[in-house]
Amino acid sequence: QIDSARLWGSIHETAQFGATAKGGVRRLTLSNEDKQVRDWFRKACEEAGLEVHTDALGSQFGLRKGRDMSKLPVGIGSHLDTQPTGGKYDGILGTLGALEVIRTLNDAGIETDAPICVVNWTNEEGSRFAPAMMASAAYVGDFTTDDILSRKDIDGTTVGQALDSIGYRGDKPVGFQKLGCFVELHIEQGPILEAEGKTIGVVDSGQGVLWYDGKISGFESHAGSTPMPLRRDALATLSEIVLAMEAIAKKLGPNAVGTIGEAVIANPSRNVIPGEIAFTMDCRSADGAIMDALDRDLRAAIAEIAARRKVEVKVDLVWRKPPTHFDPKLIAAVENAAKTLGYSSRRITSGAGHDACNLNTVIPAAMVFVPCKDGISHNELEDATQPDCAAGTNVLMHTVLAIAGV
Amino acid sequence: QIDSARLWGSIHETAQFGATAKGGVRRLTLSNEDKQVRDWFRKACEEAGLEVHTDALGSQFGLRKGRDMSKLPVGIGSHLDTQPTGGKYDGILGTLGALEVIRTLNDAGIETDAPICVVNWTNEEGSRFAPAMMASAAYVGDFTTDDILSRKDIDGTTVGQALDSIGYRGDKPVGFQKLGCFVELHIEQGPILEAEGKTIGVVDSGQGVLWYDGKISGFESHAGSTPMPLRRDALATLSEIVLAMEAIAKKLGPNAVGTIGEAVIANPSRNVIPGEIAFTMDCRSADGAIMDALDRDLRAAIAEIAARRKVEVKVDLVWRKPPTHFDPKLIAAVENAAKTLGYSSRRITSGAGHDACNLNTVIPAAMVFVPCKDGISHNELEDATQPDCAAGTNVLMHTVLAIAGV
Ligand SMILES: NC(=O)NCCC(=O)O
Ligand SMILES: NC(=O)NCCC(=O)O
Repeated sequence: QIDSARLWGSIHETAQFGATAKGGVRRLTLSNEDKQVRDWFRKACEEAGLEVHTDALGSQFGLRKGRDMSKLPVGIGSHLDTQPTGGKYDGILGTLGALEVIRTLNDAGIETDAPICVVNWTNEEGSRFAPAMMASAAYVGDFTTDDILSRKDIDGTTVGQALDSIGYRGDKPVGFQKLGCFVELHIEQGPILEAEGKTIGVVDSGQGVLWYDGKISGFESHAGSTPMPLRRDALATLSEIVLAMEAIAKKLGPNAVGTIGEAVIANPSRNVIPGEIAFTMDCRSADGAIMDALDRDLRAAIAEIAARRKVEVKVDLVWRKPPTHFDPKLIAAVENAAKTLGYSSRRITSGAGHDACNLNTVIPAAMVFVPCKDGISHNELEDATQPDCAAGTNVLMHTVLAIAGV
Repeated sequence: QIDSARLWGSIHETAQFGATAKGGVRRLTLSNEDKQVRDWFRKACEEAGLEVHTDALGSQFGLRKGRDMSKLPVGIGSHLDTQPTGGKYDGILGTLGALEVIRTLNDAGIETDAPICVVNWTNEEGSRFAPAMMASAAYVGDFTTDDILSRKDIDGTTVGQALDSIGYRGDKPVGFQKLGCFVELHIEQGPILEAEGKTIGVVDSGQGVLWYDGKISGFESHAGSTPMPLRRDALATLSEIVLAMEAIAKKLGPNAVGTIGEAVIANPSRNVIPGEIAFTMDCRSADGAIMDALDRDLRAAIAEIAARRKVEVKVDLVWRKPPTHFDPKLIAAVENAAKTLGYSSRRITSGAGHDACNLNTVIPAAMVFVPCKDGISHNELEDATQPDCAAGTNVLMHTVLAIAGV
């Protein structure tokens, strides 16, 4: 059994790095707050006897030796970055839970056959730089390191510049640390486990993701003197797109969602009809055919709206992540661990994307979910209980022991 | 006859202060570019022999003595500030046209009975600080000077701070310069004169304006894991409001318009459902009863949308300007001047607000419109012809001579 109080202490100690007034965390990837939590994490890993290295995209790897160093390590961990108005658990539980597994094994003097590697992946959230799960995507070869290093945030700062500014461009090439498999602990970020009174979610699949960048070009004109029928209003156009996306996702649901999270009017003024808007779109489904339908229906709706309103709408697909089907053997290992420890559990699909989904494309991967309050995440009110966090960490540890061999 | 080439030269010389790449002007009120054009204007007025003073809100008054100084001056002028992506004529034609009238009278050695006062009103556009026509509203007593001085722009800078930063907080109290009447020359900012091939618009009325500040409070949550039916999406709410306003204005039209020109998502992120949006609304009609209907229908629609989507929407009316009916005698004077000079003309309603509308609440006021290309304004592509600008300035001069007495 892991040390529940120690785990809880780590979660709340690190929540100071970017703490918000509403009890959440604002720790955008590669920000100063991210540097602070990385420094804390490196020190904690070193104190736990791990050999810590940082790769060229800033991901941190802490290795615990195994008896048989010819075996590839079992990877565990998650991420320490957050949304602009994020919570204390999303990613953090999985990373500090992994650290807690190491500390517990150390205290109990348990050696494993295969080594264990704790990982903090850079920019899982995708809020400052696109795509989400950026570093694990590069790790599995979906993008080159140079491509990722050149990605820009809204202020034009590149990933490379941001890494240098906090001193976290590591000396190891991406992929330097081979892993044999990867297990990630995470809060559910949805309402199902709580509603059903289950402690552990055995994640068997994950939704695919479509990310788009969009731009609407209408025509700026005077709010007072431009008759309604003559307008080419970029905001009215966006409004129709937002509602069309909502209707399409509902029609294709329940296994489909669509969101417009960002929309910026260029040169806004109270008495000017908006002429130009940049926006992004996020569509998801666990079913590849529904993803295709989302894409097709959305593009058709946008084309119709643009033509009718005589505005130009450009839509670029900037990221497509197919649905994830985790490794059956690892899923069974997680399920067994939950059963052995006496926790109630159920199979579950992840609504959110995770680094484990990327890793699963090249090595066996799986995930452990624990409930979060009211299913709320990407919100400062995100919450989870100490017993649930401890239960998830125990399942993680027992899964690792089963895979690594004692 | 005024000097068409000199007028045109002034318009294009001052267009350098804030010139944009697309041929427009970005000269937000009390910005550094506004200081530059104010310095230019003061110098030009002084060179034309005017006695120039600045009031506590930065409005500039240039007085030309009359034979009978017991008479109140005839006020002429407009504004030199622009929208963020504005044109070279909106306000500028009326201010530099007034200067051109003075220069022409000087050259011809014409003395008038009543004095003439050229005015450059501060913040007509209302883009940086609300309301629009801010200084003339204070001049007529709609707001106190202190109230206006404390208004803030989006960065939190007050009008008072902005005035000080460019050295234009004048030493004269607002209202120090009494005026007997006010005549304002302006581009139409709408398509009617051009479409009908008329050179002069004799403005007999102006639309009333309703300005609102709005705030939507929904609930931020995860774009991937929050099912569509559980969302409280602030952007979907705004989208319904935008389209409801459009439908209401069309239903109450043709004499009604409604615009949402500003909308800002708080802490935007691609994979977060928007939780909070601040926005503004601008509704207008030349008919008071239609303004009331706009307000009522809009509030009812917003209440229904908010209740159905389980979000909070706060709407504050921050400015209400009733419709304007200009002074019949001055309207006739403008019409006569156009007729005498041989220009085609028609009566017209102003879709935009103007400082003359404020002045009309306490002294007789009127306006002269000239056509603008395709009715486009509040856009960098705003355009007008040299002959039309000269024609309007001639009508302004002859109207002034008729009122002031030669
Ligand atoms: N787990 C999580 O919130 N990931 C962020 C990436 C995404 O799914 O949008
Ligand atoms: N004339 C003009 O564009 N005024 C700006 C104020 C407004 O009507 O919105």
